[in-house]
Amino acid sequence: MALIVQKFGGSSVANAERVRNVAKIVSDTYKAGNDVVVVVSAQGDTTDDLIEKAAEINENAPKRELDQLLAAGEQISISLLAMAIESMGFPVISLLGWQAGFNTNSVYGAARIKNIKPNRLQAELAKHNIVVVAGFQGINRYDDLTTLGRGGSDTSAVAIAAALHADKCQIFTDVEGVYTADPRKVEGAQKLKEITYDEMLELATLGAQVLNNRSVEMAKKYEVELEVLSSLNPVPGTIVKEVANMEKMLIRGVTQDKDVALVSILGVQDNPGVAFKIFSKLSQKNINVDIILQSFGRNGTKDIVFSVNKDNGPVAVELLEGLGFLGGAKIVCDTSVAKVSIVGAGMESHPGTATKMFEALFDRGINIKMISTSEIKISVIIDAEEADRAVTAIHKAFIPND
Amino acid sequence: MALIVQKFGGSSVANAERVRNVAKIVSDTYKAGNDVVVVVSAQGDTTDDLIEKAAEINENAPKRELDQLLAAGEQISISLLAMAIESMGFPVISLLGWQAGFNTNSVYGAARIKNIKPNRLQAELAKHNIVVVAGFQGINRYDDLTTLGRGGSDTSAVAIAAALHADKCQIFTDVEGVYTADPRKVEGAQKLKEITYDEMLELATLGAQVLNNRSVEMAKKYEVELEVLSSLNPVPGTIVKEVANMEKMLIRGVTQDKDVALVSILGVQDNPGVAFKIFSKLSQKNINVDIILQSFGRNGTKDIVFSVNKDNGPVAVELLEGLGFLGGAKIVCDTSVAKVSIVGAGMESHPGTATKMFEALFDRGINIKMISTSEIKISVIIDAEEADRAVTAIHKAFIPND
Repeated sequence: MALIVQKFGGSSVANAERVRNVAKIVSDTYKAGNDVVVVVSAQGDTTDDLIEKAAEINENAPKRELDQLLAAGEQISISLLAMAIESMGFPVISLLGWQAGFNTNSVYGAARIKNIKPNRLQAELAKHNIVVVAGFQGINRYDDLTTLGRGGSDTSAVAIAAALHADKCQIFTDVEGVYTADPRKVEGAQKLKEITYDEMLELATLGAQVLNNRSVEMAKKYEVELEVLSSLNPVPGTIVKEVANMEKMLIRGVTQDKDVALVSILGVQDNPGVAFKIFSKLSQKNINVDIILQSFGRNGTKDIVFSVNKDNGPVAVELLEGLGFLGGAKIVCDTSVAKVSIVGAGMESHPGTATKMFEALFDRGINIKMISTSEIKISVIIDAEEADRAVTAIHKAFIPND
Repeated sequence: MALIVQKFGGSSVANAERVRNVAKIVSDTYKAGNDVVVVVSAQGDTTDDLIEKAAEINENAPKRELDQLLAAGEQISISLLAMAIESMGFPVISLLGWQAGFNTNSVYGAARIKNIKPNRLQAELAKHNIVVVAGFQGINRYDDLTTLGRGGSDTSAVAIAAALHADKCQIFTDVEGVYTADPRKVEGAQKLKEITYDEMLELATLGAQVLNNRSVEMAKKYEVELEVLSSLNPVPGTIVKEVANMEKMLIRGVTQDKDVALVSILGVQDNPGVAFKIFSKLSQKNINVDIILQSFGRNGTKDIVFSVNKDNGPVAVELLEGLGFLGGAKIVCDTSVAKVSIVGAGMESHPGTATKMFEALFDRGINIKMISTSEIKISVIIDAEEADRAVTAIHKAFIPND
């Protein structure tokens, strides 16, 4: 008997049939003798539909009112799921974010959880109720509804697991777990049994899109054991925890991310502090810079190249063009690039890893524009067109096909 | 400058265009120098759609979860209306039932308002905000959402007007006010300028369907001046208050109600206490009896006839058939009847009123099955088929066509 938190996304509860499917999974877990808290997102396209309704009325709707509106989405899904569980004969109660004790700051649309007051959750569990909680939402100090932003339901689930010291937090998705590469694109992509938080974080950041990053960070901080698994296919998924079983794999996964733009500043005057001034301007505008490359100075000038999110590319260019000290430098933005990465805690003790990756790309004639490495990942920026081929080549080099 | 509470029903906010129309009415009231609190229902068919979603999943859904579900309807409409008002350049905030301080009992689906804690409402008005409040909903002592039942938004509006000592509570509908008869059916039906609470109560009970009864009762108790008016046509409506200007009319209105069944018990043993036993049984099952007629005993038996809501007719018959002491009595139910009534505080001092009504019916050959009178109304039960003709005839007799 354990306390298990289960989280289901919007597509898992998109219609009556799927709601019943989720109710079955939850009830089975409860019937097996566990205490169960379920976190759900809004049904299917509800959130998008509500955003559209708002846009029709006010394209610049106040964020507070937008949160008030969007929070209705989970209100609908939790009560429907509770009704489905009740119809199967199990005791159940649904709780809105504020009823479940979610206190957040006041950043409407992207609120951070400050704390969870778990009294009500505990009281309902003590009454042997299955507790269905609205993900994605909370309340601020003014008693106003807030939402955590897209993917916030993962964070809600992990926060509850942390607050209740749950034994496990299961994140149900439409995939069976975390794979070494996108199984729809890469032949021989394998499901991982286990993975560390840090590896998962790198995979999430790099575009694996299985788990929301904030939720993994929070799981790491509070040592909540996560499991990523399928709501449609009842097989074991991937466990995310502090120390993962290394199996025989050197790397955990190969990912690609096309949400990248490369901004080049060519012919910058080679004065001290230029790079600092550039990047402090960018950070003032909340533009996160990922990889930075700086050429050696020549003829008194140098080149600076960096990568940002695709959306931020043009914004960065406009900002840089307004900086007087860049004078005659030429600023260009390339959005047809992709970042391909390998992730794995095992690689740091294998100095040949980078060489092997570069070799795989060289063999296919794929040109590397930039390189970035950390303890558990190596990323390269290449032409977007080559991304699929690159992932397949690297995957083949590191993960032998069964 | 006054404090005005305005209430808009679901059809008034059914789509973006109508939401903007309501926003315009509200803003104009605010611009004229008034403090404004707006109460809205869920958009158009939202409530019905949600009920359908629930039925698909659980036909016997727990009432608590149904309330949790339905309350999402007003959450959507208040935030959209706030967005529309904001887009017109006015300061506004939306509040859910619990945020606006609505405390209710725990009768899910038909909760009664216990009190309103107006702190938040007052604080927002002090900040010169237009306050948009979700009608129909509140919170019980366990912090669970409750709904007030259909028509509850009228009650919400009046309750706020009472709690804030508002100068007026305007109920916007799709008609221009209270009429002497249904203007779609009766030629010469006139809009009333004023009407008393008691008259309005009789009209509401009798099927005029303009205002929810509980809201009128509450308005009477707290002396809240009501105005019934159109959200589409900006002309003065009907004022409901304690002492109405009598104008020159003897009666205020002629109404018909087809939600009636006539139950007859023929040949009851004429023993003492029989009627008492019958009606106490009915009231135990929450069957409200309206008009009762009892024949004089003959040959040791008598007949008892009474009217109930149409739905309750067959229920009453089944109940009566199970009563041993009714022995050989014959029980029949007639659902093809209607109740036609005249209402007006002026009639009690005019003894000829009933005669005039009966004469109008007699002239058209309409047979009266039962009669009931109170200080301010006279009702007759007739064949349902004759109802429209009867209303027209009576209206013509009492209210001269302009």
